[in-house]
Amino acid sequence: MTKAFTVPEAARAARQASYALAASSAAQRNEALRILSELLREKSGAVFAANAADVKAAEAAGLAAPALARLRFDGHKLEDVCRGAEALSRMEDPIGRVQIHRELAEGLVLTRLSCPIGVVGVIFESRPDALVQIGSLCLKSGNCVLLKGGSEALNTNRALFAVLEEAGRRAGLPDGWTALLETREDVGALLSMDEDVDLLIPRGSGAFVRYIMEHTKIPVLGHSEGVCHLYLDAGCDAGEAARLAVDAKTQYVSACNTIETLLWHRESEQAVLAAAGALRDAGVRLLCDGATQKLLAEAGIACEAAEEADWRTEYLALTLSLKCVGSLEEAIAHINRYGSHHTDAIVTGDDGAWRRFAALVDSAGVYRNCSTRFADGYRYGFGAEVGISTGRLHARGPMGLEGLCSYKYLLEGHGDTVGDFAEGRRSFTHKELR
Amino acid sequence: MTKAFTVPEAARAARQASYALAASSAAQRNEALRILSELLREKSGAVFAANAADVKAAEAAGLAAPALARLRFDGHKLEDVCRGAEALSRMEDPIGRVQIHRELAEGLVLTRLSCPIGVVGVIFESRPDALVQIGSLCLKSGNCVLLKGGSEALNTNRALFAVLEEAGRRAGLPDGWTALLETREDVGALLSMDEDVDLLIPRGSGAFVRYIMEHTKIPVLGHSEGVCHLYLDAGCDAGEAARLAVDAKTQYVSACNTIETLLWHRESEQAVLAAAGALRDAGVRLLCDGATQKLLAEAGIACEAAEEADWRTEYLALTLSLKCVGSLEEAIAHINRYGSHHTDAIVTGDDGAWRRFAALVDSAGVYRNCSTRFADGYRYGFGAEVGISTGRLHARGPMGLEGLCSYKYLLEGHGDTVGDFAEGRRSFTHKELR
Repeated sequence: MTKAFTVPEAARAARQASYALAASSAAQRNEALRILSELLREKSGAVFAANAADVKAAEAAGLAAPALARLRFDGHKLEDVCRGAEALSRMEDPIGRVQIHRELAEGLVLTRLSCPIGVVGVIFESRPDALVQIGSLCLKSGNCVLLKGGSEALNTNRALFAVLEEAGRRAGLPDGWTALLETREDVGALLSMDEDVDLLIPRGSGAFVRYIMEHTKIPVLGHSEGVCHLYLDAGCDAGEAARLAVDAKTQYVSACNTIETLLWHRESEQAVLAAAGALRDAGVRLLCDGATQKLLAEAGIACEAAEEADWRTEYLALTLSLKCVGSLEEAIAHINRYGSHHTDAIVTGDDGAWRRFAALVDSAGVYRNCSTRFADGYRYGFGAEVGISTGRLHARGPMGLEGLCSYKYLLEGHGDTVGDFAEGRRSFTHKELR
Repeated sequence: MTKAFTVPEAARAARQASYALAASSAAQRNEALRILSELLREKSGAVFAANAADVKAAEAAGLAAPALARLRFDGHKLEDVCRGAEALSRMEDPIGRVQIHRELAEGLVLTRLSCPIGVVGVIFESRPDALVQIGSLCLKSGNCVLLKGGSEALNTNRALFAVLEEAGRRAGLPDGWTALLETREDVGALLSMDEDVDLLIPRGSGAFVRYIMEHTKIPVLGHSEGVCHLYLDAGCDAGEAARLAVDAKTQYVSACNTIETLLWHRESEQAVLAAAGALRDAGVRLLCDGATQKLLAEAGIACEAAEEADWRTEYLALTLSLKCVGSLEEAIAHINRYGSHHTDAIVTGDDGAWRRFAALVDSAGVYRNCSTRFADGYRYGFGAEVGISTGRLHARGPMGLEGLCSYKYLLEGHGDTVGDFAEGRRSFTHKELR
């Protein structure tokens, strides 16, 4: 913790602040986002200095190059998070939206209004820009947020958090609406705060997310795995298959929306050969079932044998499993059985096959003729995302402002009693008022 | 179980059936609802005979009169559930609704469609009509459902379930879309089926719901307690206060939306005296804080002292706690601290006080000048409800067809890769298509 308070104190303070933050005006929250952007630019020197210390320590500790790239917070990343906060400040208020407006009976009116969830805990990876993005999304949606970033980014996170807190203070937001947790022990304490924390969003490896899910009574949104598929349908275009396979596997190999398995219909030999060749050229290791191994070997494409466990494995590396199926139905059954219900794509020119695939594949994202890598809040036009959910409840897929909202029912009457209705003196009209 | 299958088998069969049921047409599901209604009327003799056996056994076991009344399934209740199924068959399909339709980039179109949650487990009380209502709601929303009713209603539930299953079969719905669980052991087995069951909805006592929540990894929707409040604001109308207090406490004493605590502003003495007098006349036991006890004693209204624990107690009986507060803010703080975030009401003529109460009370239902007993899916115009949620995620308050739906994102392109966007060759348009 940056201050002399414990996690339970921070969670209780956030709960207290949550009522006032939920009642704050859009103008006030938008002002806080604008101040956040201004202050970040103003105090960029301190942030960059803190980041330089984190990067130096990480280099000394031998952190790998991709991780170092994520840790680095430079002028480009600063510009991105500032523009993100400004864009959010101009977006429509997600809070106080009328979702239902209905006369239940004469003089008795029901209104359902969107409202913040309340207190959210987000545990994110060693990318310091995530702190500002998540903080901005929670601020816009009126949610109090307890933030825990990667330990490698501690100094950068402290500097960015100080700016976030200061922006809230200058805009008159309630004290305690956000807090920075710093240690593994803090996370352990957070998991037991089910009275004061309404939702946890862990981002990170599947094993980490599963650990969180199994050690708390707080609802958890996230994806414990991203086992995504690309299926090459009978007679699909070979060039398109190769282009999409390479993008979906290699464009950003450690992302959850990267494919781990390529399925191909036995009547799409040309397509799988084109895809496998292009993937090999891109340095991808290919693990195959018998039929695929035979086909690739005949074509002189290097590959190895897959095992049953491969169909469930999220490699997060330049490795891909490949399997031949006899029908569209077999592909769908494989995806529903072994997949993680994240994002799965079909390459097909056949509208009927697409309709069947779309109806029967049980995933948050079901795609046709495009890369699974599009599964992302920014690309969907949500501005940003706090995470991607593979659960079916509340939020499914990329979770932006809408996923950070709940709702409440207001009912306004004139002394109305249920007894009058139960005993037949009055009756319901159920008339929509908008 | 009515058949020779185990709960894991039933859950796996429901998961398999869930894909086909999600892809079924509205016409087919509506036809199943119409057949259900016809068959129930046709086979009412068998249902009534089964119910007579249950009632006879319950009488012999000395079941209390209100419980017996709930167990009894007569011509009126049959008519109600038949009309309910027919009404659902005429309602708009909740599945396949377009929630987002957006061009992400030229030729790349995102569509968000509502879809069923998948497999739902509902554990309900000894009211056999609940089986038909829940089965109908799940059928309409394309959800597979595992049903567990009260053991006192076993024969009636078997007879009703046979009709539900037969209706599905005649309409061509996939086998295994529903199953009847019968024993406490079945419930234990159900709790461990987190791979194949997407949501549990337990209905019943707070202790029971908490037990379920603590013994499963499956998401649970429900309310573990219904500690609802009525707050009499300064200067509110005494007649209205008395009428609403009596309805909210006594109209159906064992319901979750019944009030357990009456709060009154110290400047609403006439109102609390009128309410307390009317409640005593209705046979309600009054447990009071010091100020209230003093006022009522002076007026000759019988009452007792409340303890700290009373503010958190759901009596589900003709007992009410009463407390005097110094301000609207104190009332709101009491409700947020001791309440269960279910439904809380204010009696006030002051629009400013109502706006503050509505903004700051953190409950699924926030009411003005009407009884908390209106918190109910039927009264809200949802047709019926599977339960009432006091959680903030997914569904809050009465949960009808909408609460039984999730959504999925479909993305259709023409060979689109993320690489083209990352490397600046293409850019997002994010244009709404409706």
